[in-house]
Amino acid sequence: MTDERDAIRVGVLGARGRMGTEVCRAVDAAEDLELVAMIDQGDWLFNASDAGAEVVVDFTNPDVVMDNLHWCIDQGISVVVGTSGFSEQRLERVRSWLARKPGVGVVIAPNFGIGAVLMMQFAARAARYFESVEIIEQHHPKKLDAPSGTAAHTARVIAEARAAANLGAMPDATKDERPGARGAEVDGVRVHSVRAAGLVAHQEVLFGTTGETLTIRHDSYDRASFMPGVLLAVRAVRHRPGLTVGLDALID
Amino acid sequence: MTDERDAIRVGVLGARGRMGTEVCRAVDAAEDLELVAMIDQGDWLFNASDAGAEVVVDFTNPDVVMDNLHWCIDQGISVVVGTSGFSEQRLERVRSWLARKPGVGVVIAPNFGIGAVLMMQFAARAARYFESVEIIEQHHPKKLDAPSGTAAHTARVIAEARAAANLGAMPDATKDERPGARGAEVDGVRVHSVRAAGLVAHQEVLFGTTGETLTIRHDSYDRASFMPGVLLAVRAVRHRPGLTVGLDALID
Amino acid sequence: MTDERDAIRVGVLGARGRMGTEVCRAVDAAEDLELVAMIDQGDWLFNASDAGAEVVVDFTNPDVVMDNLHWCIDQGISVVVGTSGFSEQRLERVRSWLARKPGVGVVIAPNFGIGAVLMMQFAARAARYFESVEIIEQHHPKKLDAPSGTAAHTARVIAEARAAANLGAMPDATKDERPGARGAEVDGVRVHSVRAAGLVAHQEVLFGTTGETLTIRHDSYDRASFMPGVLLAVRAVRHRPGLTVGLDALID
Amino acid sequence: MTDERDAIRVGVLGARGRMGTEVCRAVDAAEDLELVAMIDQGDWLFNASDAGAEVVVDFTNPDVVMDNLHWCIDQGISVVVGTSGFSEQRLERVRSWLARKPGVGVVIAPNFGIGAVLMMQFAARAARYFESVEIIEQHHPKKLDAPSGTAAHTARVIAEARAAANLGAMPDATKDERPGARGAEVDGVRVHSVRAAGLVAHQEVLFGTTGETLTIRHDSYDRASFMPGVLLAVRAVRHRPGLTVGLDALID
Repeated sequence: MTDERDAIRVGVLGARGRMGTEVCRAVDAAEDLELVAMIDQGDWLFNASDAGAEVVVDFTNPDVVMDNLHWCIDQGISVVVGTSGFSEQRLERVRSWLARKPGVGVVIAPNFGIGAVLMMQFAARAARYFESVEIIEQHHPKKLDAPSGTAAHTARVIAEARAAANLGAMPDATKDERPGARGAEVDGVRVHSVRAAGLVAHQEVLFGTTGETLTIRHDSYDRASFMPGVLLAVRAVRHRPGLTVGLDALID
Repeated sequence: MTDERDAIRVGVLGARGRMGTEVCRAVDAAEDLELVAMIDQGDWLFNASDAGAEVVVDFTNPDVVMDNLHWCIDQGISVVVGTSGFSEQRLERVRSWLARKPGVGVVIAPNFGIGAVLMMQFAARAARYFESVEIIEQHHPKKLDAPSGTAAHTARVIAEARAAANLGAMPDATKDERPGARGAEVDGVRVHSVRAAGLVAHQEVLFGTTGETLTIRHDSYDRASFMPGVLLAVRAVRHRPGLTVGLDALID
Repeated sequence: MTDERDAIRVGVLGARGRMGTEVCRAVDAAEDLELVAMIDQGDWLFNASDAGAEVVVDFTNPDVVMDNLHWCIDQGISVVVGTSGFSEQRLERVRSWLARKPGVGVVIAPNFGIGAVLMMQFAARAARYFESVEIIEQHHPKKLDAPSGTAAHTARVIAEARAAANLGAMPDATKDERPGARGAEVDGVRVHSVRAAGLVAHQEVLFGTTGETLTIRHDSYDRASFMPGVLLAVRAVRHRPGLTVGLDALID
Repeated sequence: MTDERDAIRVGVLGARGRMGTEVCRAVDAAEDLELVAMIDQGDWLFNASDAGAEVVVDFTNPDVVMDNLHWCIDQGISVVVGTSGFSEQRLERVRSWLARKPGVGVVIAPNFGIGAVLMMQFAARAARYFESVEIIEQHHPKKLDAPSGTAAHTARVIAEARAAANLGAMPDATKDERPGARGAEVDGVRVHSVRAAGLVAHQEVLFGTTGETLTIRHDSYDRASFMPGVLLAVRAVRHRPGLTVGLDALID
C-alpha cells in the first residue's frame, strides 16, 4: 500500500540488544519506515551506508557510541541515540562534528517515553495554578534508588515553575510526624516512593487547590513503551539539523 | 407509608453539635426510625425517657458522656456512642453497669465510617496473599498528624495478619534513598502521607504480588459519611445486649 | 500589610446567590483585591460605580446579565461573567458595545474551574501521541445528563486534535458487546458516565499506546473550586481589552 | 536448605504450553514444592506416577483433560486443573470418579488470580452497605467481549448480595442520555468497558453512599499473576478430598 520509495530508510546499531530488538520490530511494523540494516558487535558500520540508511538508531553502549556518531555524521546520516552516558563534554564534541555537516541531525534522549515527557510538561504548566503538589511514584521492589530519577526530575521542574510564579511554601500543618511519613523533599516538593511486587513503573503528580485536585498519572508496563518515542524521533530528525537533546523539543 | 408503631424511637444527645445535627437529620430521614427527642446542654435527660426513646445516640463530650451512659442504662435505654475519650477503665465501668441490665445494649465506636471499617477488614483478609503492601493516605493540609490514625491502625492490622501467616519481610532492594522517600514504617508496613489543598480524607492500601496488584481505596468527603454507620448501630444495638466496641462487630 | 491603594477594587453582582456569596468571600480573602460593593436584586448598580469598582463580577441570571454588562461597559468598568446563556448573538452584541470603549475588558466563561480547563488543554495536547483515548466521568446520581457537558466538550477537543494529526480510528476488536458496555460515542471518542451516591464531580481522560498509559484526572469537590479561576480572571481582565470567551485564553 | 523429603512432589501436564511453562517455573522456584515431571503431548502420563508425583497440575485442553483426570484419580494423584471447558456434566463425571477414591482431591478453577477472587469476595461483602455500585473494567483493545467475563460475574455476585439485603434500585436521575453513556446493565448493575492500547487487564468496583466511596481495584499485568493461585491450590488440594470448584473455597 505504501510506496516504499517514500519510506524513510532506517538502520539500527545494537540491533541484537534488548532495546535494539524492539526498535527493529517497531521500525519493521511502521508503514512509513523501512528497516534496511541491522548491525551489532562484529558487523561493519558500512552496512548502514551501503544499504542507503537515511537515519540510524543507536542503542549500543557508552564505549562505542561516540565512534558510531562520528562515522554516521561523516557519512551524512542522521542519528537517533538512546545510549546513555552523555556528559556535557560529549555533547559539545557532537555539536562540533555537526557544525561541519549542516544537513545532518542528531537526537539524543535519555528517555523515549512520550507519556513520561508529557507528564513532566503538563506538571510544569499546571504548577503555577495550584497551592499544593506532591509526587507519588510506584515501582517494582528491585529498584535501587528512591525516589526514581524521573520523579526527582519532575519535582525540580515543578519547583522551578512555582518559583517563577512567585508561589511560596505549600500549606502543611503537620506537627506530629512519624519519620518519613511526609516523604522526601526535592527542591521543596514532597516525593513518595512506593515499592511493591507486581508494580512496574508508575508515577502520579497530584495538584490541589481549594475544592479541587488535578492528577497526572503515567503507567509504563513495558520497554515497548519507548518505541513510539523512538519512531517520533526517527521521523523528526531529518528535519532538525544540529543537535537536539531530549524528546521534549520534539513534542511542541 | 411506614407504620410508625414499628419505627425505632430515637433520642439524640448533643443534638445541636456538628455531629448531633447530622444525626438528627439522618434519623429523621430514615423511614424505619423516629426522632423523638433532641437534647443538648441545659436540657433534661428525662425528655428522652418521657418521649419513649428506645435508643439514644450520644455525640456529646468526654466530660458528660459517662453520666449520660449511666442514666440511659438505668432507664433501660440502649445507647450508640460516638463521643471520644474511652479508656479501657471507662469501658470496664460501662460493662459493670450493663451487667445489672441484661437487656440493654451499648455500642461505642471511634469511627462510624462503614467504608473505612470495610477497608480495614478487607486489608486484613488480603494481607496473607500478597508479598508486598503499602499504605498511601491523603488528607487536607490542616491535618496535624502524619500518618493518620486510620492509616496507622490499618498498618497494624495488616502486620498482625502477615505475622499470623508467617510472611517474612517484604521485598525491597532500595539502596540509595533520599531520607523519607520510602515513607514511615508502622510495624514493618510502609505508610506514605500526602497533604494537599483540595483533598479531604482518602486512603489507599496497595497489595502486590507477581504480575498483579489489588488496591482498596476509601474516599470520605463529608461528615455525613458517618451517618450510615450510626444508623446501622441504632438498628443493631437493641439486639446486642452488653457492650460492643467498634463498628467492626456489626459488620459481619 | 498590603497597601490598599494598590488593591483592585471589585464589585459583585448577584452577591447573595450561591456563587456570588462564594465570590464575595474569595475576593475578601485575597490580599490584592478589595471588595467594594455587594449588589443583588433590588440594589442600584450605581453602588458599584459610586464605590469606585474597577472590576465587576456578575453571577446573576440570563434575564438581567445583558443590562448589567451594557451598564458596566458604559461606565468603563471591566466585567468577569459567570452567568450562563450566552449565544453567539449575545456575544456579538457585547463585542459591539466594547468596540466603543477600547479600554474595557470582559471575560465570559462557562466554567471557572482551572483544573477542568487544564485537563482539557492537556488532553488536546496529548491526543496526537496516543493510539487510544477514552473518557470516564463520574458524578453524583442527581445529575440529569450523561455524559456531562465537560466530558462531551473534552471528547470534541480530542477528536479535533486527532483529526489534525491524521490519526485514524482507534483499535477496538470488540465483537460481542452487551448494549452500552462500550459507552457513548462523541465524535468517535468513547465516553463512560458513572453515577453513584457519594461522588461529586470527577473526570478521567485515559490515553494509551504500546506499553504505556497516561491519565489526566480532575476531581472537583466544591463550588469553591471555581474561585481561583474567578480571581484569575479578575486580575487579568483589566489588561485584556475587548471580549475574552473562556478561561482558556487566560491560561497561556 | 529445605529438606526435599518434605517438599510436595508436583508433575505438570501441558508443560510446554504458555501457562504450563509458567507453572513449571513457579513450582521450581517454590521452596516447599519439587517439580518431578514435565509432561506434554507425546509423553507418557506414567512419567508422573513413576516420578512419584503427589499432585499434578493440568493446563492442557478440553479434548484431553478428562482422560488425564481419570488416569490421575485412578493412580491416587490429586489434581489442580486450569484447563477450561468444564460443563456441569463433566464436573458430575469427575465427582463420580472421586467417589471411588476417597483420599484424592481435585481443584478445578476458571481463574487462578487471587486478586480477582478477593476483589469479587470483597465486592459481595461491601454490596449491602452502599446505595450505589458500578463496575469499570479496562482491557487491551484486542479483547472480543465487553464486558469481560470477570466483570459480568462480579455484577451478578453484587446483584445477589443487594437482593439478599433488600436493597432496591440505585439512585439515578439521568434523563438525557446519549446511548451507551451509562454503560451496560448486568442484573441491574452498570458495567463500563474501556478498551485502550497499553492496557492489560484491570477492573474497578466503585461503591458509594452519602459522603463516601469505597473502591476495589485489581490490576493484572501478566499471566504470571495466576501462579500464586496455582501454588495455593497445589498446597491445599491434598487436604481437600473430593471436588472443589473455584479458587474461592480455598480463600476462606
